[in-house]
Amino acid sequence: MSWTPVRTARGTSIQPDGAREISRSLPEEAPVAMVYDGSTQAVMMATPQDIEDFATGFTLTEGFANLAEIGEIEVAMHDEGIEARMWLPEARRAALAERRRYMAGPVGCGLCGIDSLSEATRALPEVPEGARFAAGDLARSTDDLRGHQPLQDRTRAVHAAGFLRPGEGIVLAREDVGRHNALDKLIGALARAGIDPAGGAIVLTSRVSTEMVQKTVMAGCPVLVAVSAPTAHALRLAEGAGLTLAAFARGGGVDLYAHPHRVRTGESHVA
Amino acid sequence: MSWTPVRTARGTSIQPDGAREISRSLPEEAPVAMVYDGSTQAVMMATPQDIEDFATGFTLTEGFANLAEIGEIEVAMHDEGIEARMWLPEARRAALAERRRYMAGPVGCGLCGIDSLSEATRALPEVPEGARFAAGDLARSTDDLRGHQPLQDRTRAVHAAGFLRPGEGIVLAREDVGRHNALDKLIGALARAGIDPAGGAIVLTSRVSTEMVQKTVMAGCPVLVAVSAPTAHALRLAEGAGLTLAAFARGGGVDLYAHPHRVRTGESHVA
Repeated sequence: MSWTPVRTARGTSIQPDGAREISRSLPEEAPVAMVYDGSTQAVMMATPQDIEDFATGFTLTEGFANLAEIGEIEVAMHDEGIEARMWLPEARRAALAERRRYMAGPVGCGLCGIDSLSEATRALPEVPEGARFAAGDLARSTDDLRGHQPLQDRTRAVHAAGFLRPGEGIVLAREDVGRHNALDKLIGALARAGIDPAGGAIVLTSRVSTEMVQKTVMAGCPVLVAVSAPTAHALRLAEGAGLTLAAFARGGGVDLYAHPHRVRTGESHVA
Repeated sequence: MSWTPVRTARGTSIQPDGAREISRSLPEEAPVAMVYDGSTQAVMMATPQDIEDFATGFTLTEGFANLAEIGEIEVAMHDEGIEARMWLPEARRAALAERRRYMAGPVGCGLCGIDSLSEATRALPEVPEGARFAAGDLARSTDDLRGHQPLQDRTRAVHAAGFLRPGEGIVLAREDVGRHNALDKLIGALARAGIDPAGGAIVLTSRVSTEMVQKTVMAGCPVLVAVSAPTAHALRLAEGAGLTLAAFARGGGVDLYAHPHRVRTGESHVA
């Protein structure tokens, strides 16, 4: 089969006024394998588009390599899913094999409980001082992002991550059925376009969980804005990494939870 | 620190009519390690409650052991997170070590790309024939579930999974900041309460992704209902496993996508 981001499905809709046959656009979800030097490091279920961005962003946010080291990415389509094949320099290859033992996730690491818990919550670097925003820019950012979601227009069932620059609005966005993937795709697309994440904010259509903060910090972006709530753990990570965390950006308002100094709240935010 | 499901956070809310200090209840997110015979198999970020249900459900849906084999679960609280310690029979222990090599996830399995993609989409068993429902029961089930979400009442930021029995409504529900965890907790709670999943439907507050179908099928439940859309890949899995898949259960209606024979659509669904 060939992988496309949207599939049409037939079904029966049963409503208070009767039943009828329907046809609806559903988001596709494909297994995508991140393969380094012939060995799979991870398989994620993801929207089958922007695979090079996804592989780049995943590699960067996991800290496996930098953009120059990633080089060319080979995308191979199979009936079973999609491979993103990458080749890393020798030193990175050894570090990756070592890192494998210590990563937390659905697969066993062989560590005892306490060690694996410590590893799952390892300290993050500090984000750069970077961009500053008027509060109104952040409040409007999720509405602005809504204009950059063609896959959401068709399916009403996918997430997006966008990059907001002061005074410019959303300048880049990526979509995926998974919110973590959408963020990795955006971070990869920024790197490939030569845009420094320090100069703006990342905007999410979702809640802010621990992993969303980890990825934003690893990308070196100083401001994270979301339409919904952060978790308490994500907030503590943001506080520790110097990340400005803004949530509930909707209805013309926004709530600031961590490091609000990058946001000008004094001036009127009605543009 | 001690782990509680909800934390109060202070922030600044900037709204069109001005800024004010706020205090909001945020859902906590704790690293939870699934530890078998002293070795960690997985670490998930989860709501720190119902850990025994979570460990039981995870073990069942991953196919690591059955309820009798799981036995006593020891829950250990640490500053770094929570350990769910389990001890499996010798044969299961060996199978788990072998399985580790073939699981797909954020951690490398060392397999080549094609093999890891095949493993990620391995075939599921058939679900039992089990329960049948009037369409109206499914249409109302997500509203019914809303009455069993005390953590959602406090935070407006968590997911839930409930168990619906024909003519009885939602008889059991579990909540978590992660939708996969909420489902594992529900499946574990059903097993621990001696309730056979074949006799009802699982109801979700979320979309239906591949993993939600995999877990429902592994639990032996024949009907899955969700408030939002399935992915195309999840629908194909449901078709293959004989699972009845109902989606968009809201506003008094519901859409049927796979194996609708368990749902009586002919009769009036207005109770």
